[in-house]
Amino acid sequence: MKQFISTDDVPSVPRLVDIALNYKKDPFRDNTLGQHKTVGMIFLNPSLRTRLSTQVAAKNLGMEAVVFNIDKEGWQLEMNDGVVMNGNTSEHVKEAAAVMGQYFDILAIRTFPGLKNKEEDYTEKYINQFIKYAGVPVVSLESATLHPLQSLTDVITIKENWQQPHKPKVVMTWAPHVRALPQAVPNSFAQWMNAWGEADFVITHPEGYELDEKFSGNARIEYDQDKALEGADFVYVKNWSSYRDYGKILNTDSSWMVTNEKLKHTNAAKIMHCLPVRRNVVIADEVLDGPQSIVIQEAGNRVWAAQAVLSEILKG
Amino acid sequence: MKQFISTDDVPSVPRLVDIALNYKKDPFRDNTLGQHKTVGMIFLNPSLRTRLSTQVAAKNLGMEAVVFNIDKEGWQLEMNDGVVMNGNTSEHVKEAAAVMGQYFDILAIRTFPGLKNKEEDYTEKYINQFIKYAGVPVVSLESATLHPLQSLTDVITIKENWQQPHKPKVVMTWAPHVRALPQAVPNSFAQWMNAWGEADFVITHPEGYELDEKFSGNARIEYDQDKALEGADFVYVKNWSSYRDYGKILNTDSSWMVTNEKLKHTNAAKIMHCLPVRRNVVIADEVLDGPQSIVIQEAGNRVWAAQAVLSEILKG
Amino acid sequence: MKQFISTDDVPSVPRLVDIALNYKKDPFRDNTLGQHKTVGMIFLNPSLRTRLSTQVAAKNLGMEAVVFNIDKEGWQLEMNDGVVMNGNTSEHVKEAAAVMGQYFDILAIRTFPGLKNKEEDYTEKYINQFIKYAGVPVVSLESATLHPLQSLTDVITIKENWQQPHKPKVVMTWAPHVRALPQAVPNSFAQWMNAWGEADFVITHPEGYELDEKFSGNARIEYDQDKALEGADFVYVKNWSSYRDYGKILNTDSSWMVTNEKLKHTNAAKIMHCLPVRRNVVIADEVLDGPQSIVIQEAGNRVWAAQAVLSEILKG
Repeated sequence: MKQFISTDDVPSVPRLVDIALNYKKDPFRDNTLGQHKTVGMIFLNPSLRTRLSTQVAAKNLGMEAVVFNIDKEGWQLEMNDGVVMNGNTSEHVKEAAAVMGQYFDILAIRTFPGLKNKEEDYTEKYINQFIKYAGVPVVSLESATLHPLQSLTDVITIKENWQQPHKPKVVMTWAPHVRALPQAVPNSFAQWMNAWGEADFVITHPEGYELDEKFSGNARIEYDQDKALEGADFVYVKNWSSYRDYGKILNTDSSWMVTNEKLKHTNAAKIMHCLPVRRNVVIADEVLDGPQSIVIQEAGNRVWAAQAVLSEILKG
Repeated sequence: MKQFISTDDVPSVPRLVDIALNYKKDPFRDNTLGQHKTVGMIFLNPSLRTRLSTQVAAKNLGMEAVVFNIDKEGWQLEMNDGVVMNGNTSEHVKEAAAVMGQYFDILAIRTFPGLKNKEEDYTEKYINQFIKYAGVPVVSLESATLHPLQSLTDVITIKENWQQPHKPKVVMTWAPHVRALPQAVPNSFAQWMNAWGEADFVITHPEGYELDEKFSGNARIEYDQDKALEGADFVYVKNWSSYRDYGKILNTDSSWMVTNEKLKHTNAAKIMHCLPVRRNVVIADEVLDGPQSIVIQEAGNRVWAAQAVLSEILKG
Repeated sequence: MKQFISTDDVPSVPRLVDIALNYKKDPFRDNTLGQHKTVGMIFLNPSLRTRLSTQVAAKNLGMEAVVFNIDKEGWQLEMNDGVVMNGNTSEHVKEAAAVMGQYFDILAIRTFPGLKNKEEDYTEKYINQFIKYAGVPVVSLESATLHPLQSLTDVITIKENWQQPHKPKVVMTWAPHVRALPQAVPNSFAQWMNAWGEADFVITHPEGYELDEKFSGNARIEYDQDKALEGADFVYVKNWSSYRDYGKILNTDSSWMVTNEKLKHTNAAKIMHCLPVRRNVVIADEVLDGPQSIVIQEAGNRVWAAQAVLSEILKG
């Protein structure tokens, strides 16, 4: 694998899932693979799970992980070409990425969208500038439109929790939130569900929250949440801001919050969320604290997803 | 040892002190004990000694230490149950602690008190939430009411500096400060002196600065600083805010500052302080720069205290 | 080598350059030299290259590197002696440096100048306080007046790019900038060019930007940039604020920006800059993106410079 930005970089999703599950069984099976190798983890935004699980994954492979919060420990980068840099940006990504590419074997980067300029975000301008100039493989720790380490984790977690011969019904439902959030997680989950192909995948959200069809593809969209949830085996909960009316909050209807009542016509569905989750806004306490929630197991699997990705990149 | 929050977690203080002193003699004697183990060090507040000494201690045991300044690199945690999280907190400790428990073998946490709500602080609400949900052993890097790694260090340092057959007289004296500080260090020192039992322990402070008797126990309290210091072998200096009039500064009398004059009726007492110390407010330059100060040795011993604690937890 | 603050600490610049180039050929040749040793990297200011390259260099030697952003993760240090510390500083450098000296085998520190008080900056008050109290070797990660790891890198890079029998003409040129910057990089480059002795060294800048002669020594100073650049083999570009009219911006003349036009009478000079560089303010895009720029190679060499310095200090 040459980089890890989207499913396009993955020769086989099922094989990558198997590699991850093998690491879960035996975390140190490849603990010299990363010897004398270093992954630079560059954060332009906050992170808990992605940061910590990738550090642990690197160590499991015998690889060094160097964390750099460039937004706090460094300075602001210029992402536009041809600019006279007499403003707030101190260094151009052309230099910053190329220099970090001199120091690290893999460059892992988190770059959130601004949610102001749809074209800038959806052309993935920031992470593409890093890819263009780094000169080493780049791993996305979440970019403007996708969060592939999260989605790989999600596939792993569904696979672990499904032993039936038929495909599970997986429903991704929008839920309310107090802030305007990126579409990266839902875009990415849809892309991976489509690429994996082992689920009957449904998306439900209020009108106006349609995702970019580039990612949602042929997934069935259902505007009635109750109808969508009927018979669901897995419910993937997430808020996002509007893609059409870009970055806007169009709906704050708390009846979209996931409660036990909402889940009663599911097939005792397992509940998933990428976390962090705002309790009693996105999902009710009773669900998160109940037996159907698998959000902690899901977050734990982040280690094995990251380890599979780093190992495949190390193997080239 | 299952966790390290207070003396209640320590089967034998003298034995733990001996383990630490053995590491001081031979830092790398157990340098494979921590192989493939990781301690997550979670800071909700600033730290110098605790942070750096624990990192060094972990490395001495062949263990990885991952530092996470959750207040700066992550987001604000919700500590209260049942809340509708539509405010400033982005993640509940139920998820954050449980997820970090998935990534680390030991979770070490610093959580300062708010000094506003005595009950919240003295029930140790924050660190107890971590203990409840982490699912792995928790080590306190200083909590609302106690600082056990500091106190273990203090016992080690007294033991190192005392070769007489009789018990040393150890006097903990309050001293002035410009800010309202927690009672964690004096509470903890008192608790450890009482649990250790190898010192004649006296506490001196202005009226109104009495500590919670849960920690001070049967220690002799003397309101006259000069009288308390008479014949002292060790003087442990520390400011704290009032426990009774909770979190308040009741006294700014600079005559409580520790000077050479103050020490002249001691038994050439060794001077201790947990650091950081405000010079010429808490302790005079002449004392800190003089031959009686052992504050640097004391700070150096933090490594061996942390190493003893981590090793005992690794051994289960 | 006992410390690394300036050329005065280096027994032989050419030998140190050779050690660095040997590491570049074989990064892991001494990968057990640093076993059980730790370098503490203390930042009072932001850093990208210095931070990351030194971390990688330490790992190459099998040494642990612990990063501590004391300005963000700790608190403000008092640098003045005899002060009553009732203000904003929480800990004196006497304690902070001595304590960190207990934890680390080498203390590496970045301390920028205030650019307000010339005497305070030029006596290197801050780093000298660390040296005085640390009790272990101190490595400068850039101090008020010098940046020796950068300058060693620069000599390495010139040597790598010069195979002629005669000395190259190396021209350091001032260039415009929007902020008042320290003189540390140009002072240091001048000091190292003089100590190395293998270049015909010229400095060009507008009047009023003369550097401290302690560092520029006998270097030829030429106020006409075009004349200075004639026949140059290497052009070292850097902005600095005035030393004479201390810390001030005296000139914003954009005609000093380095462009292809400016370079046309050079000997196809290689272009160097320590980075970060503000594009189209200090150096034009056409130069940085053109074949004469070696700024990325130069930044990459930071690893080998740091590795040479750490290894020589480990060897004592």
